Amino acid sequence: MMNTPLLLTQMIERAERYYPKKEIVSRTESGISRFTYKEMASRARRLASALEKLGVEEGDKVGTLAWNHHRHLEAYFAIPCSGAVLHTINIRLAPQHIIYIINHAEDKVLLIDSDILPLIERVKDQLTTVKAFVIMTDSDTLPETSLSPAYHYETILAEGDPHHPFRDDLDENAPAGMCYTSATTGNPKGVVYSHRGIVLHSMALGLADTTGVSEKDIALPVVPMFHVNAWGLPFAATWFGTSQVLPGPYFTPKLLAELMQEEKVTITAGVPTIWLGLLKELDENQYDLSSLRSILCGGSAAPLGMIKAFEEKHGIPFMHAYGMTETSPLATVTGEKSYMEEWGKEEKYNVKAKQGILVPGLEMRIIGKDGEVSWDGKEMGELTLRGPWIASEYYKDERTDEAFKDGWLYTGDVVTVDEEGFVKIVDRTKDLVKSGGEWISSVDLENALMAHESIFEAAVVAVPHPEWQERPVACVVLKEGDHQNTTKEEIYEFLKPQFAKWWLPDEILFFEEIPKTSVGKFLKRALRDQVKERVGQ
Amino acid sequence: MMNTPLLLTQMIERAERYYPKKEIVSRTESGISRFTYKEMASRARRLASALEKLGVEEGDKVGTLAWNHHRHLEAYFAIPCSGAVLHTINIRLAPQHIIYIINHAEDKVLLIDSDILPLIERVKDQLTTVKAFVIMTDSDTLPETSLSPAYHYETILAEGDPHHPFRDDLDENAPAGMCYTSATTGNPKGVVYSHRGIVLHSMALGLADTTGVSEKDIALPVVPMFHVNAWGLPFAATWFGTSQVLPGPYFTPKLLAELMQEEKVTITAGVPTIWLGLLKELDENQYDLSSLRSILCGGSAAPLGMIKAFEEKHGIPFMHAYGMTETSPLATVTGEKSYMEEWGKEEKYNVKAKQGILVPGLEMRIIGKDGEVSWDGKEMGELTLRGPWIASEYYKDERTDEAFKDGWLYTGDVVTVDEEGFVKIVDRTKDLVKSGGEWISSVDLENALMAHESIFEAAVVAVPHPEWQERPVACVVLKEGDHQNTTKEEIYEFLKPQFAKWWLPDEILFFEEIPKTSVGKFLKRALRDQVKERVGQ
Repeated sequence: MMNTPLLLTQMIERAERYYPKKEIVSRTESGISRFTYKEMASRARRLASALEKLGVEEGDKVGTLAWNHHRHLEAYFAIPCSGAVLHTINIRLAPQHIIYIINHAEDKVLLIDSDILPLIERVKDQLTTVKAFVIMTDSDTLPETSLSPAYHYETILAEGDPHHPFRDDLDENAPAGMCYTSATTGNPKGVVYSHRGIVLHSMALGLADTTGVSEKDIALPVVPMFHVNAWGLPFAATWFGTSQVLPGPYFTPKLLAELMQEEKVTITAGVPTIWLGLLKELDENQYDLSSLRSILCGGSAAPLGMIKAFEEKHGIPFMHAYGMTETSPLATVTGEKSYMEEWGKEEKYNVKAKQGILVPGLEMRIIGKDGEVSWDGKEMGELTLRGPWIASEYYKDERTDEAFKDGWLYTGDVVTVDEEGFVKIVDRTKDLVKSGGEWISSVDLENALMAHESIFEAAVVAVPHPEWQERPVACVVLKEGDHQNTTKEEIYEFLKPQFAKWWLPDEILFFEEIPKTSVGKFLKRALRDQVKERVGQ
Repeated sequence: MMNTPLLLTQMIERAERYYPKKEIVSRTESGISRFTYKEMASRARRLASALEKLGVEEGDKVGTLAWNHHRHLEAYFAIPCSGAVLHTINIRLAPQHIIYIINHAEDKVLLIDSDILPLIERVKDQLTTVKAFVIMTDSDTLPETSLSPAYHYETILAEGDPHHPFRDDLDENAPAGMCYTSATTGNPKGVVYSHRGIVLHSMALGLADTTGVSEKDIALPVVPMFHVNAWGLPFAATWFGTSQVLPGPYFTPKLLAELMQEEKVTITAGVPTIWLGLLKELDENQYDLSSLRSILCGGSAAPLGMIKAFEEKHGIPFMHAYGMTETSPLATVTGEKSYMEEWGKEEKYNVKAKQGILVPGLEMRIIGKDGEVSWDGKEMGELTLRGPWIASEYYKDERTDEAFKDGWLYTGDVVTVDEEGFVKIVDRTKDLVKSGGEWISSVDLENALMAHESIFEAAVVAVPHPEWQERPVACVVLKEGDHQNTTKEEIYEFLKPQFAKWWLPDEILFFEEIPKTSVGKFLKRALRDQVKERVGQ
């Protein structure tokens, strides 16, 4: 067979040649604009030539601080298809972490949304490697800025070459992108994505049995493009000629619902918090989202109640997935087997509430206390993964040894796997409640709580206990209105039939809000501190 | 990213672990039997250990002379997943060619269906490398045979190790399979398939936008497993846990229709000749084939009349594809773009009658008289292909240089490509009718002829002409019954409005049958000789 490399270049060139008329809908500060793939590819070529003029060479890192919009998508291809490395920076990180990762990655150029400018201006003196700042804005001129040298994105594009050739001679194992993931303590850890990894991951996204991303789709990634490449959707969508709807900055549930309705979106992707917000919007106002064939949900476990509400009340199929920055991210996804079609409704929901089945191309092992766990849906173990789109290390980071052992990634996620091979996230290894030598899953308790009609959100954390080492405490946010009258006792009565007595939380605390990470996951560390204060420890 | 290789081992292990209950339905000499993937994998492991005992080592070639059945499927994985090379032998080749390819490939062991035994017994003394013959039969004992040493497949399996480990440490570029393709003149040419090529090709088969092979499918490959790996279906189907229906030896259209009906087949694959036969059967007898979501057709161009008959009369979606032994084979496939949904019926059929759009992962160039042709659906050129599942050479064969140039495969097929990127096979470079410096497509004339209500089959060949160099002559087989009264004049009247005058065949000859190759394509070389005789040249 031919030794042709798997490169991102083929992906954008396919969109350019085969789907020149298909559209990218982009929402930016000044409203909605539309670009065809032909225009997008030509603009990406201009950007590639402009970056070259700014001194970007093969292997150089180019950082982006940007929302989901067409310019960011152009950078997604212009940078790696020139042999440079697309470094998407999570703008929600603390300033000192942003400084760290820009310096650690050695970004040579930064592409910055104009509304994110102040963030970088404040820290500019601490950036040690950046040689140029390119400002992405709808305005015709460069905004006033203390950054220097600063360039106006549209101006350098106008001066760029629309026929600039993309590289088709790169090594498929060359780095194409990188993304840092926050650590529990210390600085974020960098993951490098190769061309080969991204191409194979994109193929996995296009399989009929996984997310089936197709030319016939209209895809709206709510998950930010600075977070694990928006789960790889912009790459797969471009390759397959899928229409893309990029929601830009500061979207609300209302705005998302409107965009989905107007653009007839067929597939969307994001974390549970986003979908809880959307659900509330759909419950309160009337939309026609009949075009939507799938809500893809990952990042943390989706409560069963939410899945049911989307499917039964709004007729929107819900697709549960699992992955992390280190896994590109798609690792498991809901995949009802053909013979499950005959199963009962609740049995099916039981499957949907799990994170799904391993995607073709990857291998997994679940390591419990005594080696690989049995596939009984009960025995808990740490999920370990191997495959061509799984990271092999953290970029120049000593913490590599903690997560990568014997050729496997140790995810830090505790799971069970049932007879059918469906994985269920039970907890983070560090969030498990270890009570009297037994393990209690905080996630199981949270899901049960969130199925209560009055509960909007619930998080369970471990608090130290003199006798049992740790005990669970539940933190609950009630829905608005009458629900606010719900009592602790009512919630206990609701939980009792569902769990062994020793699993029940020692305390149920009511909160106005649960603290969350920059990507919408519960921030259990902060929550544990608040709980300790309230229970007086 | 991890450096894990793309290997067939992962494919069968996925079926074994995730889809142990899913079924393979196999029709052999003694009837239909059923195996689960769990049983299949365990039998494949037994076979791998048995072959090892017979002395098969990494890199050794193991030949198969077998129909589509479960034992052949076991060999599909047992051989490459042990590091050996699966050499599927086209049993329809002339004996001297079979001898040539067994010796040329240096097959060490042959797996032979009992009904194919006589063929090998006759030539056994000319086989120079074979050390052992394994006979695949339903009977409990080894059939009487002059081959030596001969082994009974089921006996060596019974003695094999059901837990024999498959190799997960091979180089992904290592050979996994090989297949010889007939040449116009001389010996067949060998193509070697790598693990990487087969894995990527299988992924391509699973994409929602191509054939979308899925766990939910029940796949019946009519195309023989000795012909380009049955177009890769057994590999993809196993990987995705798809149920497989293997029709065994000597199937008739009636038998295929019955099998499809009984097993609720959803996708099937074969050459146009097979589908012409099936269509006749469906026209004459009543079947319920409502489960069928796609007839995949390749090997040669499908006449539009047939496509319409399947879709309109029988409600069965028809999927046109293009490929060859050198391309694994999937290269292009029908892929109606989303905006074509609004097109008129005839416009859509015009798209369906073409061979489709390039599959993601490959690159193509159409080389005409003056370099790359324009995408206007008119300019003709030779299709050249590049990509990770395209062969890079013929195995130990000097003819490599004729087809492989500058890193591209020259397919020998003349095509046009339209504005949307859809490829239409116009002819083989050698079958084009070159009339007075202009090109006439024999395929276009054939398709037009076969759309005539009285015509069952039609082939057009070039005959030498003193003035015009070459001129087309049509060879026509009429349908049975009243259609037999159709005259040459009626056919000319039917053609006239569709073509320029100089395209019309100089002669229309009626035949009882058109000679065909072992894989059901028109044997134009033989036909040209017959035509020359009849037109008196």
